[in-house]
Amino acid sequence: MDTIELRIRTGATFVTDLTRQVTDFCRGRGDGLLTVFVPHATAGVALVETGSGTEADLEAAVERLLPAQDIYRHRHGSTGHGRDHVLPAFVAPSVTVPVLEGVPTLGTWQSVVLVDPNVDNPTRRVRLAFLAG
Amino acid sequence: MDTIELRIRTGATFVTDLTRQVTDFCRGRGDGLLTVFVPHATAGVALVETGSGTEADLEAAVERLLPAQDIYRHRHGSTGHGRDHVLPAFVAPSVTVPVLEGVPTLGTWQSVVLVDPNVDNPTRRVRLAFLAG
Amino acid sequence: MDTIELRIRTGATFVTDLTRQVTDFCRGRGDGLLTVFVPHATAGVALVETGSGTEADLEAAVERLLPAQDIYRHRHGSTGHGRDHVLPAFVAPSVTVPVLEGVPTLGTWQSVVLVDPNVDNPTRRVRLAFLAG
Repeated sequence: MDTIELRIRTGATFVTDLTRQVTDFCRGRGDGLLTVFVPHATAGVALVETGSGTEADLEAAVERLLPAQDIYRHRHGSTGHGRDHVLPAFVAPSVTVPVLEGVPTLGTWQSVVLVDPNVDNPTRRVRLAFLAG
Repeated sequence: MDTIELRIRTGATFVTDLTRQVTDFCRGRGDGLLTVFVPHATAGVALVETGSGTEADLEAAVERLLPAQDIYRHRHGSTGHGRDHVLPAFVAPSVTVPVLEGVPTLGTWQSVVLVDPNVDNPTRRVRLAFLAG
Repeated sequence: MDTIELRIRTGATFVTDLTRQVTDFCRGRGDGLLTVFVPHATAGVALVETGSGTEADLEAAVERLLPAQDIYRHRHGSTGHGRDHVLPAFVAPSVTVPVLEGVPTLGTWQSVVLVDPNVDNPTRRVRLAFLAG
């Protein structure tokens, strides 16, 4: 298994595109499975289109479905931070992508993104792990 | 890694059962991990029971949680198509299933299904990738 | 591939922490990918913090988003059991975690949990599958 851990500066950005880093990591590695894994309890990974409005749509959907209000038992940090802790149950912090000849088999409109509602932690780690086969 | 790409005709069907294709692909392959991966930005993969009403329940739940209304930034295609682009953040386009002696270790009531809210693209590709171990 | 199937007594508990069992299983196994897989159609797996209120917050969020009311086509068992069958489309029954030198690369606040809304089945099976690389 080949693996690296990235440090990503997200700041207050809800959706951060990781596709370039993922593509760079896979290059030259042949066939196998790539797992993109976020070792944080308040973030997720998703495969969505970027650059056409979905980033804002996803942020609005999360706010509608899991509002950052004072309704959570888990309280610390910013108001509604308890919501950030519920998010990974729905937007999981792990996704696996088949890789062929060093190229992730993403569709034309798929990007790998970090979903990070947590404004209290501006820097995030992301592990890329490739198992050749 | 052994891998194939299926072409699935979904038409306007929200949930399409892929269990037979998955089972056929795994047969004879021994032990390993199977990743079912959809290279599209407006579809997901899920493991649910089929044939007892859950297909309709899932479609209704998606419509309730992510309504196909004119509330999205991402606009093109049918009304509410922006919703289809948010779906994969919640119903991910990748799921990994352990395989033993060529048999996916699915439970009795689990089927592998393609979740496709997108009525504008009647045909979908699905990648099956098996990594032996 | 090394694999075991656990039997977990969940009873009426919505969130059950599996981190200890996962950590024990990985010990001594070197590098690879671990898939935690639930072979049931009414349960999911998640990576969340435990012990700080998120268990209750997650249960409340599921009840708000997928209420256990008599609104589902899939009817048998307790009222609203159809909801339990929709849950795995959003909280998937499979998650993959990279393992380094026999240690899952979970973050400090991440626990592996079984999410089981189904009060009719008090015992659940969970498969751990490790593919070395």
